Parts: sequence; structure tokens; C-alpha cells
Amino acid sequence: MNTRITSLFSIDFPIIQAGMIWCSGWRLAAAVSNAGGLGLIGAGSMTPEILEEHILKCKKATARPFGVNVPLLYSQVEKQLEIIIREGVKIVFTSAGNPATWTPLLKQHGITVVHVIANVKSAAKCEQSGVDAIVAEGFEAGGHNGKEETTTFTLIPLVKRATRLPVIAAGGIATGRGMLAAMALGADGVQIGSRFVASDESSAHPAFKQKIVEAGDGGTSLALKKLVPVRLIRNSFFQKVRQMEDAGANAEELNALLGHGRAKLGMFEGNLEEGELEIGQVAAFLEDIKPAGEIVRDLIAEYALARKELPDPGSVL
Amino acid sequence: MNTRITSLFSIDFPIIQAGMIWCSGWRLAAAVSNAGGLGLIGAGSMTPEILEEHILKCKKATARPFGVNVPLLYSQVEKQLEIIIREGVKIVFTSAGNPATWTPLLKQHGITVVHVIANVKSAAKCEQSGVDAIVAEGFEAGGHNGKEETTTFTLIPLVKRATRLPVIAAGGIATGRGMLAAMALGADGVQIGSRFVASDESSAHPAFKQKIVEAGDGGTSLALKKLVPVRLIRNSFFQKVRQMEDAGANAEELNALLGHGRAKLGMFEGNLEEGELEIGQVAAFLEDIKPAGEIVRDLIAEYALARKELPDPGSVL
Repeated sequence: MNTRITSLFSIDFPIIQAGMIWCSGWRLAAAVSNAGGLGLIGAGSMTPEILEEHILKCKKATARPFGVNVPLLYSQVEKQLEIIIREGVKIVFTSAGNPATWTPLLKQHGITVVHVIANVKSAAKCEQSGVDAIVAEGFEAGGHNGKEETTTFTLIPLVKRATRLPVIAAGGIATGRGMLAAMALGADGVQIGSRFVASDESSAHPAFKQKIVEAGDGGTSLALKKLVPVRLIRNSFFQKVRQMEDAGANAEELNALLGHGRAKLGMFEGNLEEGELEIGQVAAFLEDIKPAGEIVRDLIAEYALARKELPDPGSVL
Repeated sequence: MNTRITSLFSIDFPIIQAGMIWCSGWRLAAAVSNAGGLGLIGAGSMTPEILEEHILKCKKATARPFGVNVPLLYSQVEKQLEIIIREGVKIVFTSAGNPATWTPLLKQHGITVVHVIANVKSAAKCEQSGVDAIVAEGFEAGGHNGKEETTTFTLIPLVKRATRLPVIAAGGIATGRGMLAAMALGADGVQIGSRFVASDESSAHPAFKQKIVEAGDGGTSLALKKLVPVRLIRNSFFQKVRQMEDAGANAEELNALLGHGRAKLGMFEGNLEEGELEIGQVAAFLEDIKPAGEIVRDLIAEYALARKELPDPGSVL
């Protein structure tokens, strides 16, 4: 399959497995890369030492390209980037921060840099910073999210119009039909998170994986908009947040409730009631936990079928 | 073009122009029907007498199928349906209410009935009520919206899986690429609102049309969630609502601020600051006001081009 994204990364299919906190270590990244997509190690929940270990193991587990996702607001970002450069990682996805800060350093070392955005105005900043591609992530995505609440359906065409860089669509994509829809909107590739959290190789706690496949329509909501908006499963912790928000709580009060370590508690340790369970709306569509390689193969098979079924408008041109 | 929706309505293209308050009278409906789509008169802002006048004028202006959208919570719905039946209108879209209440009466008179939903659980109710098709409308849509906040990208596959009825996708669709994406997700047709509000034939106030094409990313937000969620342009009225919501205002207080007639004030009378300006997120993509027939032709031409450009996955099956 040939798109600007398969060329950029030298991969078979324009499918990126999102680098996510607590869910995407070397096992998941290697499995996706081995299946012809691009696997990403999620550095946001790793100390520099743990990240180094994951990079080394990933190199042993796959001969294919893989990358690391680095949230730029993380306190140890400099050490993480040092390790990434030293270990010869060729692809870095950055998020949650300014792409101008670190892109020049990474480019100096021949690294392909992709930055994640959730609104149109950030596209210009990405171009100016010299990144190689953009991930545009819609409102339906899990975890941290944009204040504009622009959905994938609306965001992708807007970002495509605003930039000449390749655009990777994210948010709401979990099937071959979703991938086809993203490409129809103009995307050059897709980034998929939730579907890969519910995979055998993800490091999410088994109870969290089970919670994902049981979530239904309306099972997630965007919360903590006065801090950084984040999409969560509507568990007990979420209900407490929502109650405080409905009563007009301010950022300080919400921060006190949030405390520290809630995402680890929920996603990695499996405390489904008091933990922060970050996942996308598309969890409502997921019904099974399966191997990551099978997910990639199913995506492509469904994409191919759905593409052939698209109604022909006849000779209207 | 052949889909279950073109067959159901005997139209050339599976494009429905949404029946909207204050924006879609007989002129717009007739223009869309004459171009090969399905035009809908929006009865929600019409007295029964005005509705009758619009139906009579629409019949004179087009020999093609057209329909009426009736919000079922409207106080004069019974009188409106009487007129629709008496005047021999063949297609009715219902929304904002229970499809079980009026569908049997309409079906007795040989009318094709479509019901608008914003979540998956309503799909079963539609089937049980005997409607002929479903409009599934995502979070990005303008005007009244669902509490689940499920986006078009997530909602269409969920509704398709839940029903055997034809599904019309709505919310975020304004271009041929958007139409293609909706069909890729499994939709049998599309309903388009915002793009047709910014058309020559729409009865929206010219100042409102101009405001739509000037709206950018993040220019609309979902407001009044403690009443009925509604997507609005972020004008002065919206800012007052948001301030009260952030401070924890309850439904009664919000209702007092809302008062009566704000949608008419904004959308029909052109008071851009104090009026309620209902429009979809996709307004951010719109740059011009043009004839409705041209909109339909552009949709199909872009659909055809984008369909041919979709990357071929090769022989993966």
C-alpha cells in the first residue's frame, strides 16, 4: 500500500499504533511493526531507565521500523531524548508541548519527527518547526484532548487544507472502515490507540482491557476541561469529577481531587473505580481482545472490502 | 447512484438536505430536490398555516420528491401532520421525540418515515416503531444534540451494527470527501445541514450566513447541556451561557437566561450577539455562500474524484 506515510516510515501499511501511557511498551510496538504497521513505545509513563530497556527489547523483537512517543511536558524529556538519540531510534512522535523546542535537535540526528495536534492553528507551528508529518487527533480520542472539541470528521479536512505535510488521522478509528473513512477525508495514514489497548500485547491491566470491551455508547466522556481535557470511562472517579464540575468547581479544587498517579492506578494496576481510565469513544464498538498482528491484518482486509463496496456515482464529471 | 436511500426516496443522489428551523423553507427544499437530492421543509419554526403555504409552494417549484421535517415535541405537531397528510406529502422526517407516537398514523397514509437519533439505543426503538430509515447524527452537528456526545465517526458504525434499516449519516458532512467518508463508515446516505444554511436559497438571515463562513476551528461549542444540548456559534449569548455553566448554574437559571425566541432572533432576524446561532462544527470549513444546486453537484463531483484516489491495499485478501 503506497501513501506518503508508508514512504515516510518505510512500512507496509499506513497504520500507526499510538504511543500511550501505561499501555504501549516494547511488546505491543514490536508486534505492530512486525505486522507491517508502525509500533510506538509510549514514553510518557516511563522513567528514562525503563524507556531504555524498552527500546533495547524492541530492537531485539523486530527488525522493522518502530518509534517512541514523547510527551514534551514530561519533566525528564531531555534525558529521554538523549537515550532515544544514543540508541539510534529513527522515529519520534511528540505531543503535549511546543514542537519548536526539540524538533531541531532530533532532526540534527536524522530522526523523523511527527507532532500530535488537536486543532488547526497548531498545523502552522508544526510546519515552522520542521516536523515531517502531523497527527491530527479528534474529540473522540481517548486521553488528553483539545479545548476546541473538534471531531475527527471535522478536523482532518481542516488540517489537510492548512498544511502540505502528510496528515495522520487519529480519534475514533478502530476498523478498516474507519481507516477508509479517514483516507476519504484526506488523511495519508491513521493512528490507532484504543483498538491496540485491547490487544494481547498491550501492557494495560487485564481488568482495564475487559472494561474497554464492555463499554457501550456514551461510556466515555471528556472531563477536567478546566485543567487539561481528558476522555475517560465514566467510572466512580469520573462521577466525582462530573459532580464537582456541575457544581462549578475551579481548577484548584479539581486538581486536589485528581491527585497523583490515578492513570497508573486505573490503567496499569486495574483499579476500575478510583483510577483514571483513559480510552476513546470507539471503545463502544470493540468486542474482543486479540493479538495486535491480527488487528493490523483485519484492518487491511476490511479496508479492502469496504473500498470495493463504495457506491459508484456514475459518469457525473 | 444506487444506494438503499436513493431507492427508498426515488432520488438521484443519497443527499438529504436537513430540515432546519428558520433556514429551510420551500425555496431551499425545492432547489435541492431539483438537483437530484432530497429537500426537506423544516416545520419546527412554522405555524401549521405557514407550513401549508410552504408545502403548496414546494409542490409548484419541483416535480421531484421532497419531504418535511417535524420535531415531535412541537405543540402543534398534530395539526402539522394533518396538513402533511392532506397535502399528500410522501416523506416525513421526525426528530426530538418518540417515533412510536406518530409513525403508525403516517404509515397508514403511505408516507415514508425517517427518524433522527443521536445514540445507539434509539435505533431499536426506531425499528419497533416501523420507521423506514434512520438518521444518525453525531456530536459535531449543529442545533440540538445527544447527551452521549458520540461523534459521527463513532456513531455510524455503532448504529449500522444495531439495525438492518438504512442509515443516513449526519454531522460534520459538507463536502464530497465527507460524503465518501460517511459511506465508508457504512452509511447508505448523508444528511447535510450547515452547508445548505450557507446557500442562496436558505432563509437564514444574510448576516447569519456570513457569520457561518467566517467561523473558524473552535467557533462552535455544545452548550446548555443541563437543558437540551445545542451546538451554537460562540457569540455574546453563548459566552453568558458558558459563564453561568462554569459557575454551576442549574437548569432553571439557564432557562431564565435563554428565554423565548432566541433562535429566531439570531438565525432569522440576524441579531448575531444576542441570538442563538445554531450551526455545525463544519462551519469552520465553509468559505462561501452558493446556490444549493451547485452544492449538490460539487458534492458528487468531489465524491467521485476522492473515491478514485483512495489508496489500493493490493491483493491482501
